[in-house]
Amino acid sequence: MMNQVSASVDAVNLGQGYMSFPPKDFIKQAAQEAFVEDAHNQYAPPRGRQHLLDQIASRFSQKFARSIDSGSEVSIHAGANEALLSIFTAFLEAGQNQEAILIEPAFDQYTPNVIMAGGKPVYVPLRITTAKDPASEVISSNDWKLDMDELEAAISPKTRILVLNTPHNPVGKVFSRSELEAIADISQRHNLLVVSDEVYEHLTYGVKHISIATLPGMWERTITVGSAGKLFGVTGWRVGWAVGPEDLIQPTLAAHTRIVFTTNTPLQEGVASAFKQAASNGFFDSQREEYRQRRDRLMEIFDDVGLPYVVPDGAYYLLVNAAAIKIPDAYKFPTFIEQRGPNFKLVYFFIKEFGVSGIPPTEFYSDEHKPLANDYIRFAFCKTDQGLEDASKRLQKLKQYLQS
Amino acid sequence: MMNQVSASVDAVNLGQGYMSFPPKDFIKQAAQEAFVEDAHNQYAPPRGRQHLLDQIASRFSQKFARSIDSGSEVSIHAGANEALLSIFTAFLEAGQNQEAILIEPAFDQYTPNVIMAGGKPVYVPLRITTAKDPASEVISSNDWKLDMDELEAAISPKTRILVLNTPHNPVGKVFSRSELEAIADISQRHNLLVVSDEVYEHLTYGVKHISIATLPGMWERTITVGSAGKLFGVTGWRVGWAVGPEDLIQPTLAAHTRIVFTTNTPLQEGVASAFKQAASNGFFDSQREEYRQRRDRLMEIFDDVGLPYVVPDGAYYLLVNAAAIKIPDAYKFPTFIEQRGPNFKLVYFFIKEFGVSGIPPTEFYSDEHKPLANDYIRFAFCKTDQGLEDASKRLQKLKQYLQS
Repeated sequence: MMNQVSASVDAVNLGQGYMSFPPKDFIKQAAQEAFVEDAHNQYAPPRGRQHLLDQIASRFSQKFARSIDSGSEVSIHAGANEALLSIFTAFLEAGQNQEAILIEPAFDQYTPNVIMAGGKPVYVPLRITTAKDPASEVISSNDWKLDMDELEAAISPKTRILVLNTPHNPVGKVFSRSELEAIADISQRHNLLVVSDEVYEHLTYGVKHISIATLPGMWERTITVGSAGKLFGVTGWRVGWAVGPEDLIQPTLAAHTRIVFTTNTPLQEGVASAFKQAASNGFFDSQREEYRQRRDRLMEIFDDVGLPYVVPDGAYYLLVNAAAIKIPDAYKFPTFIEQRGPNFKLVYFFIKEFGVSGIPPTEFYSDEHKPLANDYIRFAFCKTDQGLEDASKRLQKLKQYLQS
Repeated sequence: MMNQVSASVDAVNLGQGYMSFPPKDFIKQAAQEAFVEDAHNQYAPPRGRQHLLDQIASRFSQKFARSIDSGSEVSIHAGANEALLSIFTAFLEAGQNQEAILIEPAFDQYTPNVIMAGGKPVYVPLRITTAKDPASEVISSNDWKLDMDELEAAISPKTRILVLNTPHNPVGKVFSRSELEAIADISQRHNLLVVSDEVYEHLTYGVKHISIATLPGMWERTITVGSAGKLFGVTGWRVGWAVGPEDLIQPTLAAHTRIVFTTNTPLQEGVASAFKQAASNGFFDSQREEYRQRRDRLMEIFDDVGLPYVVPDGAYYLLVNAAAIKIPDAYKFPTFIEQRGPNFKLVYFFIKEFGVSGIPPTEFYSDEHKPLANDYIRFAFCKTDQGLEDASKRLQKLKQYLQS
């Protein structure tokens, strides 16, 4: 419905997190060349093509400073999403009401995937902890904190899994070492499996991304999930991976084999070849710099129109606080928007009045915690310069609705 | 384990059902060209790319002699397997022990997919009904009959789904109109959803494939599943589809969206383009003729060595009856084969002694009915001429083990 509203006004799309700019030529070519080999058109082994398993093992051996075995400690999936579903399916026993803790805002596939696997989601929201007023002042994504007492209080004898997302969508928070140490301590004391969704690991701005799997005692209880779609800017390829110790990857792979059997072969080969080339052509560094510029430009745009936001340390989303927007009392919303609450009204107003579409972050919260996000809109900056400049022009109109 | 045995003797692989010959050039090129368009590298809508939805709608409008709406009556999946899982997830209510009837031999993903969706598989085997002795005489795949009384007796108040597979893997049976009418009658009287796995619909030899969805009163209660991997000889592309009325496709699509979110975009576009070209270049006819020749050659090979088989009317598998093989009493099997029973021993013997690998069809049966398949081996003929000739040479050695 919201997409139809966007289309009806030809809105600048800063909503969904796909790239509106082209993939680099070497990446497209890597895929095209994969088809030349006949075997690349037939089933891959369920675990994945050896070329890609080797590339992932090599990348994570370096990142994790340990030797990762491509034959037992990696599995390739039909996107990071299917990796997550495979993990939940493998480790949440159906009919037992086993619990998975989700940190809100939580990517909107986590909840249905946990439920589909027969588990029960339990929610712990990040809390804004700053002396600043987020409705009028720019704050840091690091001001969104996980209250470790609140986390620990949410754990029950039925808790099996803790899902972590760093860099975080949509906050842009990159969990610090001390935060990860506290989470690690809790997960060890309560014997939790940590599922670390790190699909934005390559996009950090001035801070270091740390994988919780590298903390002492954590490799044994962590599965790290990644995405070629995010890493190479090709969200449509649907190639993801899971990395962890053999006793965690084996059940994940068994579930994967039943869910999709195997991941498409040619794009696995394309990703493997892109990895090889990226190792020497500086792609990851130049890509990070391009995203940093896009991030800075989008922040500048909201500085200019006068709305505060959460400075993202990672990923490619900007949470803008639009509490200062005064929507006219008589403004008419369609029924389907009225029903979805104030956050949807705000997003609708941006689309209809300014022609710029974002995502309502209340979609990333359980009903109980939705009010925490009522004032926010998520804008994606994985978009062309032209798209960002169009948004800038259109958002000028916003100034007339600011409460003074 | 069996794969390792095959590799250890460099066996001719007539096991897994993937093509050992190359895809036609126009198919590979269709995929390669898809990457040129930047948007083809980003997320497709969960339902699928419009180009492909249109091609499927057009193909099935013709096959089903009714107007199929691409926007509501088709969904694209990450392979036919994921389509089936989506359907089971959508229509088997978790925790209710709802039942799905599987006709044995049943493709080995059906059972885990039904269970994963929270359902319970109930098995009804095809029964060989012929005056011939299948251990010494060639029989027809049409001699494998579904006993309609046995089918009806298996239905309980908890039965929700009947899974049909035509052309059938591994029997090669193409269900006749009168058989489909009997199944249709039963499914209507018991208000069952029919899931018709028709991934081999394009490969029939002298008989007509009929979709059960085209029978009176059946469109409303049937979802038909297909596969681009099978249709275009590219099993590694992982693009499948489901076709049916909107009220059945909508829940299927909702499950799909949670399972994998969306199917890889470039290969959807590649398949759409391949469909367009196949409409005018005669591909489907020439492909069918090539498969018919491969089938005839493999049957000839077993005629020559003196083992009977089941003549397949469709698909690309030959069930060979090897009861006449006398395995020496003192023959040593490894423990993991001993544990799997006589059918595994037979397949192991073929690999080790003749260097030709097949699949043990007991894998397609519930424990209760496995003995029905003890004498059979499934060989796939989606293989190169060279592969078939190699198998022919190696199988000469078989003659010395025939009981006279």
